[in-house]
Amino acid sequence: MKPPTKTPASESLAGLVGQSVDAIDTPALVVDLDAVDRNITRMAEFARKHGILWRPHAKMHKSVVLAQLQLRSGAVGVCVQKTAEAEIMADGGIRDIYISNEVVAGPKLARVAALALRLTQENGRLAIAVDSVEGITRLGQALNESRVQHPSSATIDVFVEIDVGQGRCGVAPGGAALALAQAIHKHPRLRFAGLQAYHGKAQHLRGAQERRDAIARVVEDALSTRKLMEAHGITVDLVTGAGTGTLVCEAASGVFGEVQAGSFMFMDADYAHNERDAAQPQFEHALFVKTQVISSGEEHAVCDAGHKSHAIDSGLPKVLSADAESHLEYFNGGDEHGVLRPAGAGHRIPAIGRMLWLIPGHCDPTVNLHDFMIGVRGGLRNGTVEQIIRVDARGALT
Amino acid sequence: MKPPTKTPASESLAGLVGQSVDAIDTPALVVDLDAVDRNITRMAEFARKHGILWRPHAKMHKSVVLAQLQLRSGAVGVCVQKTAEAEIMADGGIRDIYISNEVVAGPKLARVAALALRLTQENGRLAIAVDSVEGITRLGQALNESRVQHPSSATIDVFVEIDVGQGRCGVAPGGAALALAQAIHKHPRLRFAGLQAYHGKAQHLRGAQERRDAIARVVEDALSTRKLMEAHGITVDLVTGAGTGTLVCEAASGVFGEVQAGSFMFMDADYAHNERDAAQPQFEHALFVKTQVISSGEEHAVCDAGHKSHAIDSGLPKVLSADAESHLEYFNGGDEHGVLRPAGAGHRIPAIGRMLWLIPGHCDPTVNLHDFMIGVRGGLRNGTVEQIIRVDARGALT
Repeated sequence: MKPPTKTPASESLAGLVGQSVDAIDTPALVVDLDAVDRNITRMAEFARKHGILWRPHAKMHKSVVLAQLQLRSGAVGVCVQKTAEAEIMADGGIRDIYISNEVVAGPKLARVAALALRLTQENGRLAIAVDSVEGITRLGQALNESRVQHPSSATIDVFVEIDVGQGRCGVAPGGAALALAQAIHKHPRLRFAGLQAYHGKAQHLRGAQERRDAIARVVEDALSTRKLMEAHGITVDLVTGAGTGTLVCEAASGVFGEVQAGSFMFMDADYAHNERDAAQPQFEHALFVKTQVISSGEEHAVCDAGHKSHAIDSGLPKVLSADAESHLEYFNGGDEHGVLRPAGAGHRIPAIGRMLWLIPGHCDPTVNLHDFMIGVRGGLRNGTVEQIIRVDARGALT
Repeated sequence: MKPPTKTPASESLAGLVGQSVDAIDTPALVVDLDAVDRNITRMAEFARKHGILWRPHAKMHKSVVLAQLQLRSGAVGVCVQKTAEAEIMADGGIRDIYISNEVVAGPKLARVAALALRLTQENGRLAIAVDSVEGITRLGQALNESRVQHPSSATIDVFVEIDVGQGRCGVAPGGAALALAQAIHKHPRLRFAGLQAYHGKAQHLRGAQERRDAIARVVEDALSTRKLMEAHGITVDLVTGAGTGTLVCEAASGVFGEVQAGSFMFMDADYAHNERDAAQPQFEHALFVKTQVISSGEEHAVCDAGHKSHAIDSGLPKVLSADAESHLEYFNGGDEHGVLRPAGAGHRIPAIGRMLWLIPGHCDPTVNLHDFMIGVRGGLRNGTVEQIIRVDARGALT
C-alpha cells in the first residue's frame, strides 16, 4: 500500500525553512525550539541532580529527531506504547527501546521478537512490559520461534507491570507480581528486568500535596513488591515509571531508578493547571497550534482549528494572549472550527485574518493528528522557521 | 517533504485482501461494505422520493473511492470543509466540489482560484461559502489574479452562509445576507449560487420533535432571506444544508434543494442516541474499530484501542455485543487503552486475546486518525476483507 496522497500544503512545507513565522499557513502545529531546548536542559539537570535515569516517552512526540535530541542530552533510551512505534524508532537509529505496555497478539509478538533480535545484533536492547502468565507464555513462544530461525538468538528485557492506582493494566503489587517474575525466570530468552509502576491518574491531580500522597503509596507498593521478590531470590534491577506531573516524587523516592516523563518537552494546557511542586523544574509550553480567524461577528469570532487540529480529551485549548486588550476564550466549534469569545468586558473580538496561537489541552494525541511539526527559533511573534520535524510514528497504532 | 515513514503493518495491509476478518490485527478501522451499500441505497431512494439533490460531505470519509461510490449512486457532487480536501477530491477525479466553509487566507485563496480554473477547464465546478464582505473581497481578488495569469478565466459559485442557530460562522438571515449577495454580484468572477444554511447543533437534539421544531425555524429564516433577495432582484438558485440528524425536515421543507448529510453512510454511536424520526431511512452502523483484550483482571479488562484509535469528542465508543452473556461498557483508558467492565451482574470479563468491535462516538474525526479503512464483506463475524480504502484526505487541515 502506498501512503495516502499528500496535500500540496504538506509538500511545500520544506519551502518554509528560513522564512518568518508569518509565512506559516493555518492550522499548523508549531514547536518553539528554544523552549524545547530549555525544557530538555532542565530535565537533564534534574535527572543528574537526583542520580536517576530518564527515558522519555516517545508516544508523545513520535519523532525520531526529537528522540535523538533527548538522547544526546543524556536520556538513556525511549519508551513507546506500540510495537509499530518501536519499529519506527529502531528504523531511525534508536537502539534502546522499551515498550512500556502489554503486547499479546501473535502477529505483533512475531514483530517484537524480530525487533529484539535486530536490536541485540546492533548492540542495542528491547524491553517490554507484561502483566499476565498468558502474556509471558505468548512472548516466550514468539522468542523461541524467532530462535529457530536465527541461531544467534535474541533476548528481551521484561518488566512486570504492577497496578499502583491507575486501574488499567498491571497485576496487584506483592504475590501476583512475584508469580509473574518467577514465570519470566523460567524462560531462557526472557530476562526479568524489574517493575513497571506508572500511576497515570496521579499526574493530573491538581494539588502538589495530593500528588505527593498518591506517589507515596505507589512507592510503598513498589518497595514492598521488590522486597518480596528479593526475599525469593529475584533481583529487581530497576523500578521504572513516573510522568511529568509527579516525577519529582518518584525521583526523590530512592526506589525508582528511572523516570519516563515525556510531556515535559512540550507541556500542555492540562499540565499547566497543576499546582507546581516546588521541586519541579519550570517547564514551558513549547507546542502550539497556529490558527487564524475566518469569521467575525458581533459576539464571537471563529478560527480554523477544531478538534481535527488538536485533541480535546483533556480539555479545550487555551488562546495565547497577544496583548492585554484581547484575552480570548476558546469554545468547541466542532471538527474544523473554534469559537472565540472575549474573556470579559472590554476585550476585543478579533478581525478576519487575525493569527492566533493555541496551547493544546493534551500534547500526545494532538501531535498524532499532524504529519509534521514546524520548528521555530526566536519566538512565535518574530521568529523564523528552522526545521520541519516529521511525526514519524503518527498513526502507528499496532 | 516526503510523507512520514510507514509502519510495516500499514504496508502489509494489501496482503489482507481475500483473508478472513480474523486476520485483521488490532486496533484497526473496519468498514462493513454491505452496510455501506445499504445506507447509500436508502439515501439515494430518499433523495429521489423527495426530489432533492444530495451532496454528501466528504469531510466525513475523506476517501476518493467512497465519494465516487456515492456519485455513481446519484449524489451530485461532494462537500468539503478544507481547501486541501477539495484538492485531493479533484486529484481523485471528482468534478463538482463545494467548500461549505469560509476561506480567507491569501495562500489558500490562491489555491482555491487555481482549483476553480482547473475544474472549469474540466467542465466541472467549484463552489465556496462566504459570510463577510472582507471574505468576498479577498476571494474576488484571488480570482482576478488568477484571471491575469489565465485568459480563459475561472468562475466560482458562491453561497452566502446564514447562521440559522449553530452560532458559528454565517451572517444573520435577512438584510445582512442580502448585502453579501449584492457584494458578490459586483464581482464578475463570482456567481451568487444561493444560501448555505446548516444547523449543526440541531443534528444531535435527541427528540424527533425537537429537531423538527429547530429546523422549522431554520426553514423560516432561509425562506424569508430568499424572499428578501428575490424582492431585490436576486435569484436564489439553491438553499443547501442539512445533516444526517435532520435531513428529513429539510427534505420535506420545499425550501431546501440539497442535503449535505455525510454520516448516514457510516453512522456513529452519537447518532444512534437520537430518537429516530419516522420519516428517516434506517441507516445502520457501518464503521467499527476492531480491538483486542491485552490485559484482564478481577474487575475489568483492557483493550488496545484508546483515543488515538477513535475520537471521543461525541462520547466514548460502544462495544458491539458478541452474545447475550457478555455485554461490556467502554471506559476511557487514555491514548492507547480502553477499560472494559461488564455491563451488569452475570456478564463476563473477556479474556486476553479476545477480539471486540467498537462503534465510535463520532465517525468524522475517527476516520481522520487512520491512514486506511479495511473494507469487509459478509459481516464482522465471518466476513472477508474485500478492499483497503485509503483515507486520502486524512490530516488535510489547510
